Amino acid sequence: MTAQATPRGKFISLEGGEGVGKSTQVRALAQALRERGLEVVETREPGGSEGAERIRDLLLQGAEDRWNARAEALLFAAARADHVVKTIEPALAAGAWVLCDRFVDSSLAYQGGAGGLGVAEVRAINAFAIGNGFPDRTLILLLPDGNERAAARDRDRPDRIGGRPADYHQAVDRAFREIAAAEPERVTLVDATGTLEAVTARLVAALADLLP
Amino acid sequence: MTAQATPRGKFISLEGGEGVGKSTQVRALAQALRERGLEVVETREPGGSEGAERIRDLLLQGAEDRWNARAEALLFAAARADHVVKTIEPALAAGAWVLCDRFVDSSLAYQGGAGGLGVAEVRAINAFAIGNGFPDRTLILLLPDGNERAAARDRDRPDRIGGRPADYHQAVDRAFREIAAAEPERVTLVDATGTLEAVTARLVAALADLLP
Ligand SMILES: Nc1ncnc2c1ncn2[C@@H]1O[C@H](COP(=O)(O)OP(=O)(O)OP(=O)(O)O)[C@@H](O)[C@H]1O
Ligand SMILES: Nc1ncnc2c1ncn2[C@@H]1O[C@H](COP(=O)(O)OP(=O)(O)OP(=O)(O)O)[C@@H](O)[C@H]1O
Ligand SMILES: [Mg+2]
Ligand SMILES: [Mg+2]
Repeated sequence: MTAQATPRGKFISLEGGEGVGKSTQVRALAQALRERGLEVVETREPGGSEGAERIRDLLLQGAEDRWNARAEALLFAAARADHVVKTIEPALAAGAWVLCDRFVDSSLAYQGGAGGLGVAEVRAINAFAIGNGFPDRTLILLLPDGNERAAARDRDRPDRIGGRPADYHQAVDRAFREIAAAEPERVTLVDATGTLEAVTARLVAALADLLP
Repeated sequence: MTAQATPRGKFISLEGGEGVGKSTQVRALAQALRERGLEVVETREPGGSEGAERIRDLLLQGAEDRWNARAEALLFAAARADHVVKTIEPALAAGAWVLCDRFVDSSLAYQGGAGGLGVAEVRAINAFAIGNGFPDRTLILLLPDGNERAAARDRDRPDRIGGRPADYHQAVDRAFREIAAAEPERVTLVDATGTLEAVTARLVAALADLLP
């Protein structure tokens, strides 16, 4: 009998602005990877572990201005630290691939970039939180400005984006593009236009070098 | 009629190991300062604002190992960011002196020093949390090793310190001494031996340059 070490899984995060298709594509990509024989764990932020869900409750309860920007960024980072230790790392160690719907780059783009805290500062507290728990690959879905679907997300969800200035989405997308430029090995921009299947095929292609 | 700006109050934190007399001395020092005509706000960590108390609940509930060290340090920092913005800064702006029972240096000494995360790393996330909201003066109460009161605290509270290694208190005190050496302008070590009144007198003396 020979003992064989389980090869470690890969950690993939999907990122992008509101309504760009992240949740749809986490499900579709998980399905595509399972068809290749991989074990896949789907998770999402904020949340994904018992402690992180409790912090999520604190973040989502109460008035819009309940937490100042710095307290909020630290709560997201604390939740992420718990999520990595309790959910993501054990799954990877057991050989599963982990697909996460939003992760550290949402904090960098939303709170660091668009929110004005600074991408470098928010990266530093997240590096403290997760150590070397950064994804093996981050896929950022982007819709061109003026795309029908990009416009529709504004009409569909006036509640969630009501208080935000008109150029908020553009600031988020700009921050995502800067993150991708700064970390080309980890982060890949993926065109989110076209059919669900077309987008999934692009995501799989962007993982080609990691697939067994 | 002349409008006169209220002079900003001073922010004083009291620090030190378990049972060294912090809470007793916050009350006594507040009394001494009020007798000098100052308005004084007493507060304590973790907590001191509505949001911070909610985070305190998360920190104190559940099993000892509920949060990993990094998540815990980030939760303390998030609570501190809220405490500063909601409670401490408004009181200082209104001209009150603020006395806080434990503050940032407890995180540095306990989690950074004795807990092994590193004083510099824990200082960095706290600097993100509170910006220039560091105390004007930090008074660290110290009892010599082998002092009766230092020994008594171990007997009195076996529940709170049960799981800690025998040299834990010494590591905390060592970290406090290093913090004081690194920031002599802000941080003063104060001998906590002797009567309550003797210790209060030393604390008032250590604030002489700040008093009106
Ligand atoms: N390729 C596609 N073509 C057309 N519609 C799509 C496509 N992908 C997703 N959608 C639709 O767009 C909407 C938003 O998709 P989804 O919820 O996956 O986005 P999301 O990025 O997770 O959004 P949120 O930021 O709100 O979580 C849904 O109604 C979804 O069915
Ligand atoms: N100068 C003193 N002489 C003798 N006993 C004292 C003196 N100062 C405080 N005590 C007693 O020591 C005990 C601990 O004091 P206190 O609760 O103020 O310490 P603390 O530093 O706030 O402790 P903790 O870390 O548990 O919050 C109390 O019983 C208090 O009455
Ligand atoms: Mg979604
Ligand atoms: Mg006390």
